[in-house]
Amino acid sequence: MSHAAPPPVVVPTIAECRRLVTEARASGKSIGFVPTMGALHDGHLRLIDACRRHCGFLVTSIFVNPTQFGPNEDYQRYPRTPDDDHRRCAEGGVDLIFEPTVAEMYPNGPTATFVEVPGLSSVLEGKSRPTHFRGVTTVVAKLFGIVQPDLAAFGRKDFQQLAVIARMVHDLNMPIRLLPVETHREADGLAMSSRNRYLSADQRRAAVVLSRALQTAAEAVASGERSADRVRQDLAQAIELEPLAQLDYAEVADAETLEPLDDLSAGRPAVALVAARFGDTRLIDNTLLPTVTSESSCN
Amino acid sequence: MSHAAPPPVVVPTIAECRRLVTEARASGKSIGFVPTMGALHDGHLRLIDACRRHCGFLVTSIFVNPTQFGPNEDYQRYPRTPDDDHRRCAEGGVDLIFEPTVAEMYPNGPTATFVEVPGLSSVLEGKSRPTHFRGVTTVVAKLFGIVQPDLAAFGRKDFQQLAVIARMVHDLNMPIRLLPVETHREADGLAMSSRNRYLSADQRRAAVVLSRALQTAAEAVASGERSADRVRQDLAQAIELEPLAQLDYAEVADAETLEPLDDLSAGRPAVALVAARFGDTRLIDNTLLPTVTSESSCN
Repeated sequence: MSHAAPPPVVVPTIAECRRLVTEARASGKSIGFVPTMGALHDGHLRLIDACRRHCGFLVTSIFVNPTQFGPNEDYQRYPRTPDDDHRRCAEGGVDLIFEPTVAEMYPNGPTATFVEVPGLSSVLEGKSRPTHFRGVTTVVAKLFGIVQPDLAAFGRKDFQQLAVIARMVHDLNMPIRLLPVETHREADGLAMSSRNRYLSADQRRAAVVLSRALQTAAEAVASGERSADRVRQDLAQAIELEPLAQLDYAEVADAETLEPLDDLSAGRPAVALVAARFGDTRLIDNTLLPTVTSESSCN
Repeated sequence: MSHAAPPPVVVPTIAECRRLVTEARASGKSIGFVPTMGALHDGHLRLIDACRRHCGFLVTSIFVNPTQFGPNEDYQRYPRTPDDDHRRCAEGGVDLIFEPTVAEMYPNGPTATFVEVPGLSSVLEGKSRPTHFRGVTTVVAKLFGIVQPDLAAFGRKDFQQLAVIARMVHDLNMPIRLLPVETHREADGLAMSSRNRYLSADQRRAAVVLSRALQTAAEAVASGERSADRVRQDLAQAIELEPLAQLDYAEVADAETLEPLDDLSAGRPAVALVAARFGDTRLIDNTLLPTVTSESSCN
């Protein structure tokens, strides 16, 4: 908290954003960046706090990017809470809020140019949302071009998004350090998400099944479970037992390549990822799994 | 010419390149960049001279990028003349030569991530070389990420490449100004190209048909020709009359979108572009066409 700090400047244009970032950089400050779609919650505040500690000038963008929503997704109804967002940014010590219109970002309609990370973008979320990650990587490349941050924070809650962006930054030699931030959770374990506010009271209670199933999976692996298939089945079953949940996927994958794993004792870092619908609301969650070695699992 | 200047530093690693560019920037110099595939000729020197005038620190890259060559193209035999290249860079006042290996640029094989400019990349050269521009835009995005230039020079000889890169820079909000540089020609009109050195003496003499045909086309339009089809036919016929030339395309297109034009009096800037083979050597050339307005063509 930095209540004494001046409130963030809010700018809607690329030119003004660049001007203020250039000024800050000229004064010797490093630039931190937290891209968001607004509807800020405490999870975003964790990103802002984490980034703040590593930079001299903190930029947050608020932009509900149409190109990462599919035709039947929730672009129109996605929550937009600008006043609350600005207040939270002020509390978090953000220096500059870049809040462009769609016309400012895409003056001629969606850009012709796109950035794509094949492979990583087509599994898991990419199966249910085939054009999603192309929209994400392209808009993040644009935002990186506009803000030119030294450091950018992304939440582990969107595990695959972080993996895709990390790959893009690496492959395209973008001069940006990524700061992954742990998932922030409600008291009962539900991962914080802007979409949680869509949930009815019943759905909200039911949604905890995702984090509970993931925790059970992590405990099973810690206790020696080595079959990724068993973990997948247990995850799926736990979610399917919740009447208000409609399972999309329950996967156990290599934490770097996101390829499905068979054997958890192969020494590769593993992640369990789930997606399910609660009514019209699609939620995702994940957890890194404890490392299993052949030795420890024989004990 | 700046014979008194110290010779350029040659670095093979991304880390060293970044370090030296960062130092130059910290000393207040703006960064100019001329990406090349080496085999430098006087045309490259024009790029270097033009860029030099607008920057405080000039970087040239020398990298024969495998991903922009098709499977049956001339990647293996592409001319590599490092000593001569270094000498020419020194004469041109280049400060830093970034000369990476393929392994330095693509440590895990070709990058998964790619940048694509659809539309512009699939016409003309893109028809004959379907993966070419994806290779170009991806490696240029990488080089821009490594060098972070303020200004980058590209020749108009590769007209479509310049259009594709300009579109990428615009669409992805890359903070880089492009400097287009006019085509430099031999005394008889042949556009300078690293590939000219493949030509036999007979082919070399025959190759002048490209620039002559283009010049005839520009003169016809200046004299009132309004039919793009007529210009296309005349271009094609002139090239086909040369026994050593095998025509690939002769096109008259909108200079910005590269879409074929019908009517040269529509007020759009127009460009004539040709490609032909001379033995195994494929050459391209182009010329902007004089602007025709309905009024002037009625006179």
